[in-house]
Amino acid sequence: MKYIYFFNKGQSEGDASMKELLGGKGANLAEMASLGIPVPPGFTLSTEVCRYYEEHDGAYPDGLSSEVEQNLHRLEQATGMRFGDPEAPLLISVRSGAAVSMPGMMDTVLNLGLTDETVKGIVKRTGNERFAYDSYRRLVQMYGDVVLELKPQSETEIDPFEKILDALKEEKKVKLDTELTASDLKELVESFKTVIKERLGVEFPQNPKEQLWGAITAVLESWNNPRAIKYRELNQIHGLIGTAVNVQAMVFGNMGETCGTGVAFTRNPATGENVFYGEYLMNAQGEDVVAGIRTPQPIETLKGVMPKAYDELLQIRETLEEHYRDMQDVEFTIQDGSLYMLQTRTGKRTAAAAVRTAVEMVQDGMISKEEAILRVTPEQIEQLLHPTFDPKEEARATQLTKGLPASPGAATGAVVFSAEAAEEAAQDGKKVILVRIETSPEDIGGMNAAQGILTARGGMTSHAAVVARGMGKCCVAGAGELSINYTKGEFLVNGKTVKEGEPISLNGSIGAVYLGVVPTVEPELSGNFGTLLSWADEIRRLGVRTNADTPHDAATAVRFGAEGIGLCRTEHMFFEGERIIAVREMILADDEAGRREPLAKLLPMQREDFEGIFKAMEGRPVTIRLLDPPLHEFLPHDEEGQREVAQVMGVPVEQIREKVDALHEVNPMLGHRGCRLGITYPEISEMQARAIMEAACNVYTKGIKVHPEIMIPLVGNVKELSLQRELVEKTAEAVLIERNLTKEQIPYTIGTMIEVPRAALTADEIAQEAEFFSFGTNDLTQMGCGFSRDDAAKFLKEYVAKGIYSHNPFEVLDQRGIGKLVQMACELGRKTRPEIKLGICGEHGGEPSSIHFCHKVGLHYVSCSPYRVPVARLAAAQAALEDE
Amino acid sequence: MKYIYFFNKGQSEGDASMKELLGGKGANLAEMASLGIPVPPGFTLSTEVCRYYEEHDGAYPDGLSSEVEQNLHRLEQATGMRFGDPEAPLLISVRSGAAVSMPGMMDTVLNLGLTDETVKGIVKRTGNERFAYDSYRRLVQMYGDVVLELKPQSETEIDPFEKILDALKEEKKVKLDTELTASDLKELVESFKTVIKERLGVEFPQNPKEQLWGAITAVLESWNNPRAIKYRELNQIHGLIGTAVNVQAMVFGNMGETCGTGVAFTRNPATGENVFYGEYLMNAQGEDVVAGIRTPQPIETLKGVMPKAYDELLQIRETLEEHYRDMQDVEFTIQDGSLYMLQTRTGKRTAAAAVRTAVEMVQDGMISKEEAILRVTPEQIEQLLHPTFDPKEEARATQLTKGLPASPGAATGAVVFSAEAAEEAAQDGKKVILVRIETSPEDIGGMNAAQGILTARGGMTSHAAVVARGMGKCCVAGAGELSINYTKGEFLVNGKTVKEGEPISLNGSIGAVYLGVVPTVEPELSGNFGTLLSWADEIRRLGVRTNADTPHDAATAVRFGAEGIGLCRTEHMFFEGERIIAVREMILADDEAGRREPLAKLLPMQREDFEGIFKAMEGRPVTIRLLDPPLHEFLPHDEEGQREVAQVMGVPVEQIREKVDALHEVNPMLGHRGCRLGITYPEISEMQARAIMEAACNVYTKGIKVHPEIMIPLVGNVKELSLQRELVEKTAEAVLIERNLTKEQIPYTIGTMIEVPRAALTADEIAQEAEFFSFGTNDLTQMGCGFSRDDAAKFLKEYVAKGIYSHNPFEVLDQRGIGKLVQMACELGRKTRPEIKLGICGEHGGEPSSIHFCHKVGLHYVSCSPYRVPVARLAAAQAALEDE
Repeated sequence: MKYIYFFNKGQSEGDASMKELLGGKGANLAEMASLGIPVPPGFTLSTEVCRYYEEHDGAYPDGLSSEVEQNLHRLEQATGMRFGDPEAPLLISVRSGAAVSMPGMMDTVLNLGLTDETVKGIVKRTGNERFAYDSYRRLVQMYGDVVLELKPQSETEIDPFEKILDALKEEKKVKLDTELTASDLKELVESFKTVIKERLGVEFPQNPKEQLWGAITAVLESWNNPRAIKYRELNQIHGLIGTAVNVQAMVFGNMGETCGTGVAFTRNPATGENVFYGEYLMNAQGEDVVAGIRTPQPIETLKGVMPKAYDELLQIRETLEEHYRDMQDVEFTIQDGSLYMLQTRTGKRTAAAAVRTAVEMVQDGMISKEEAILRVTPEQIEQLLHPTFDPKEEARATQLTKGLPASPGAATGAVVFSAEAAEEAAQDGKKVILVRIETSPEDIGGMNAAQGILTARGGMTSHAAVVARGMGKCCVAGAGELSINYTKGEFLVNGKTVKEGEPISLNGSIGAVYLGVVPTVEPELSGNFGTLLSWADEIRRLGVRTNADTPHDAATAVRFGAEGIGLCRTEHMFFEGERIIAVREMILADDEAGRREPLAKLLPMQREDFEGIFKAMEGRPVTIRLLDPPLHEFLPHDEEGQREVAQVMGVPVEQIREKVDALHEVNPMLGHRGCRLGITYPEISEMQARAIMEAACNVYTKGIKVHPEIMIPLVGNVKELSLQRELVEKTAEAVLIERNLTKEQIPYTIGTMIEVPRAALTADEIAQEAEFFSFGTNDLTQMGCGFSRDDAAKFLKEYVAKGIYSHNPFEVLDQRGIGKLVQMACELGRKTRPEIKLGICGEHGGEPSSIHFCHKVGLHYVSCSPYRVPVARLAAAQAALEDE
Repeated sequence: MKYIYFFNKGQSEGDASMKELLGGKGANLAEMASLGIPVPPGFTLSTEVCRYYEEHDGAYPDGLSSEVEQNLHRLEQATGMRFGDPEAPLLISVRSGAAVSMPGMMDTVLNLGLTDETVKGIVKRTGNERFAYDSYRRLVQMYGDVVLELKPQSETEIDPFEKILDALKEEKKVKLDTELTASDLKELVESFKTVIKERLGVEFPQNPKEQLWGAITAVLESWNNPRAIKYRELNQIHGLIGTAVNVQAMVFGNMGETCGTGVAFTRNPATGENVFYGEYLMNAQGEDVVAGIRTPQPIETLKGVMPKAYDELLQIRETLEEHYRDMQDVEFTIQDGSLYMLQTRTGKRTAAAAVRTAVEMVQDGMISKEEAILRVTPEQIEQLLHPTFDPKEEARATQLTKGLPASPGAATGAVVFSAEAAEEAAQDGKKVILVRIETSPEDIGGMNAAQGILTARGGMTSHAAVVARGMGKCCVAGAGELSINYTKGEFLVNGKTVKEGEPISLNGSIGAVYLGVVPTVEPELSGNFGTLLSWADEIRRLGVRTNADTPHDAATAVRFGAEGIGLCRTEHMFFEGERIIAVREMILADDEAGRREPLAKLLPMQREDFEGIFKAMEGRPVTIRLLDPPLHEFLPHDEEGQREVAQVMGVPVEQIREKVDALHEVNPMLGHRGCRLGITYPEISEMQARAIMEAACNVYTKGIKVHPEIMIPLVGNVKELSLQRELVEKTAEAVLIERNLTKEQIPYTIGTMIEVPRAALTADEIAQEAEFFSFGTNDLTQMGCGFSRDDAAKFLKEYVAKGIYSHNPFEVLDQRGIGKLVQMACELGRKTRPEIKLGICGEHGGEPSSIHFCHKVGLHYVSCSPYRVPVARLAAAQAALEDE
């Protein structure tokens, strides 16, 4: 096996396609060299070395050592210098570089090859003693830190090398490193060597080969250092073999005034504008650009300073973009007027820049529409849809804690602890953040009134999260470190107490909670955004609908491109104003007759709701789910609330309490809800079916087409569906006859949620009664995995950390398990009814990898919250492209 | 299509195999006639007539009328009489008779053919005017009631015919019907006809054919009368076409002293003893034997009264048993010294009789062992295992309410409302019934101390029901009419208040609750019982294990034939005495170190538990499930209990309260339990694995073999299992090394419950880590169907009534849905690991139809509560036979 790949102009053994083996940096260095771009020569130890090293407890593969020797020899020939030569010493860098960029996580050692001997050769060759010893002291410091691991011994101690440096500067009464003289630096080298010897009992190696191997080992070790592991975990980087090791001839930007170094993007990474964008420093090394001690200059001013190098750089910008057909992020160094490229990679960009770059590259004929679609991530689309904090301000803000990024966006407001307080404040025009241990349907008004919602409990699909996403409202959920005391009107977090009325800020995209006000920037929805999504619409095969319960949500979703409503929950409509009174009357009734009276009061209200939604959807299909939640959710659980209801209804408070108690369930998720309500209280389904159909008739009569799809929830057994279907059909036909309309005019259909595992298992039977299936993957995940979404947050974090699930299955569909149920149900359903319409209305309908799955199993559409509709449009197109 | 089947000696068109078509009665009348047994001739309208009648809104099939005419003609020829002939009038009966006996549920009309004209012919022919008019008034009364439906107009009114009869008897100053003279009866006929005319406006028909068709229609209508529907529902009689209609020549047992009528069993139906058993009345009709006005005579005395008829009867007894190869229940009539058989059917028998009859018939060479096994129902086996109420006493007792038959048996005791009270009473030697709204693990001591348990909430698999069945203790669960007031120490039910200390009785086999003491009879476990089960053991292929948590339960189960423990729950062990303190300490600890200390205290206690169980099982395999329930179940939820714990543990009560609150879950069934505990607190699994293995080593060292099977609960993802397996294996190997033993000596295995739907769906992956699967069908049903077993009782009753599920899926495995998961898991599991051991340990493991399913899908064993082991042995044998 070949372990090492050499690179130099016309001699590269690797290329850009070999990222897995050579890492991103190594592969692109080889590619650039092949393109004739000036790159300091070098060689790359492949990731297979790292793999071998890992699997053999830190041993090197046989033959590696001689391969290193051979390549070092080629490098010496290419540069005309020799490693360890006291006259013309070759200096080299050793850098990590995995297939996926992990900036700053792994180790680097520069200036290798410098010793007490060779440093003199550098002095001689450059005539710059200060430069030579500065390079040497940097090597000793870096080597001591990275390879020999001389670290502070306690958290309070400062870095031993920095300590020595500081002491010297004090002694010399200078402020900057650059003010130290050559002899100061010489002294520093000695002091550094001494501290290594004293603290570690080893000498700084004077053998360049020993230095080289020490650095290689350190880089390989750094692959599994804790922060690298954590980084991969956080960024969900899986399946990599290891890091490559790049050994490259040093070039210096700090050898004098004809030297410099810089970084640049081939386009503006913030806006996507097609301009060369970057900065540089003269007489500096790469780290100086980052360190922020000297202010780098805008790249365009380089033209005046070093016109030849600048022109060359512009030429390289063009070459790279043409070659890579994407925006590049490059690093370069100018040594004695000669330009060297040290790195190129695909440039990270903001969402806006991603969209603009992709669209403009299509317009310039560089890439196809399909490529453009694959260039923008669904997460970037999401970013574009929500106001965001000014990144600089956010970095400065005091972070209180982190919770789950439950609903993206940025929100700032005064803390309130109850829905009522939120509503009152909103009426006074105040901006508030609603902070709750968890939310319940009774809090909806307050959630709507608040800028954002913060909860201590609950996961990505908790009530707070689901409702907030539905509202397009920022939400951080399950911030477990929060200890909320409603009585005192304050919460405690990480030692800080925040009282009611104090301002906090939430970043719902990352789950961060900040103290005080963090200023926001407005999102820019440029025309490119629309262009890109229209291309996505041409390509995708999956329909995209929305989950919306109000005309307002429906209209928002249509604006975002929704092609219908996949889930209209009717229960939210039951909470508003005087309706809740009628709902409670119904629940408290003792028999059917007693229930029919309040239901008759609800009928016109529900009808009006549906009319509004039908109008907003303008003929697009609307799937309406009949009442789903357990009835006790509509009753007040606190003494005061119960007294209030008792008074309004003119019954003793005991009666209310008893009914609430009687409706209590140990596991409400698996209790008396969904179609089970419709089976035991058919009059509820009947009222809802009538409201839907009457609304449809009214709207149709006004000249607007209506496609109601009536959905029976929580079916587990075909007979549940057939009973409910019969009732709904009978009611619907009766309404049509009353209104003198036909089914051709109001083409309603009846179908069911597939959300109980048994329904998926018996989907062939269920399809006999269902014209459509809509997968309720939230409940399917709850029951299929046995995870209560309200409780599982407690351990799911640990489950993901331990790799039991790669993601929280409420966020990303568990394809192997729950997906199997979905697939099975699709197959069984189609067997019975080939034309059956299949969709998904669980939260997963807006999650890219889950959308990909939906595409693969052949669903007709996904349905998600309004603000996720554009995300789904893109993800569906990407799925279609990747599936080709 | 042929609708009518004639029967007469040598002329029968039907036979006993045609029950579906001719009903049980009709088929057997035909069969008896073919056997040469004297049967009054007649013909049977097949069940297809009933089906047609149902499907065509009460119309008869074409041609039926002429078929009736033809058969009536044959009947006239066979009897030498003519229907409606004033000289020699043929009288006939019209009786219902479905394929499954529904005694008394449908209608019958006797003496058809009598009119004002023909009654004179009867007088002439019999010379018995009184008999003739008595027969006529019976016809008018029966016809008026059954065919013309002259019923009381209100609930308080008595039957109009009875009213007239009573008035006449008063007028004539007689007490018995038999004291009325011929002219009295003549008068009665007229009065009956008048009341029909007055009340209904129609005449009693004087046309015999009209009478016949009226009676046929009435019988067909009675198939769907409410009590017949209810009866089929209660007895789970499904899929019948309808009733047949038997038209048969009348014979009279009440024509004088050479006449009589009786019923008999070919063996004693109570004990199974091989003696002729029955009773008769001279000069009487069938209904008189049942009515109880005259006391019937034992059958053996008939020998003295009518020796010829008796000998003939004995001969017929022999013929029938030989022919039918089973005990028969017959009805006969003697008319003028001639014996006629009116019915034969398989005799209903007690459990004891069923066993004795089956075993003795094998010993007599009448039937095979296989047949014997199919003759006894699993329900009968169950009856034999529990004390039962004396049926006569039970019929007399005041029933308070009915709940679910949660755990069979009979129990009587004084009402107590708390587990503590039950335990105190038991210490004083008092018998009590524990009455609770629902029970929790904290009540176990009290449940054990009580004679029986009655709960107001919870289903067949509620805590109370499961634990009670495990204990073999009588339990009535979910008696929803009960309103329990703990504070007052009383419960209210159907207007009656029962106070603490008052005696009540429970019949756990039917769910009945009685006021006061109902005397019981002791079950007799004769040697035949053992013989039958030993035959079952020869035949069955399924193993039978038990669910047992204590050495006592284990020993009981072994006595009942258990071949191992399929489920040993370790959590029950956590509740006793001082253990609970250590358990609570563990739960309240803040970190691993804090948990390890109390776990160390628990270790020796758990080890001792396991030693006891291993000893009791004497080398049989023992499957031990690691801790399963959510931790909050171990903490007290009431203020007082929390204060107590706080005191014992020396922490502030707030700390306890906070921890209890923190552990609260919205849906505990889907929460932090099962292996999720072992994943987040590995030290718990570690302690348990160590306790199991140390116990195994200790017992092995004493010369007793041990086969521990360590079972990880609630696995949904193979990675959960591999993490827990690794931990258990490491611990087990460590113990073996410490004890200087090998895995060959303690051949432990590690496997998992399959109880989460996702586990079944990914069983191929899970089998990579599992040496055995045990199906936890309780939880699989909960999650697969989405039914919380604690809450579903509310609507499941209605679901079964509406035919959505044929049975409560917690009682009878839902084969179509949950069964599919089981089957899938078996197939996937075997694909990965062909030798994988498969069992079931849910409650369904003791339910016959579910056992049959387990046999079919190829499980290796079922496991059930100790008292169900014999039931399972029989059911497994029956499954093997029916599967051949």
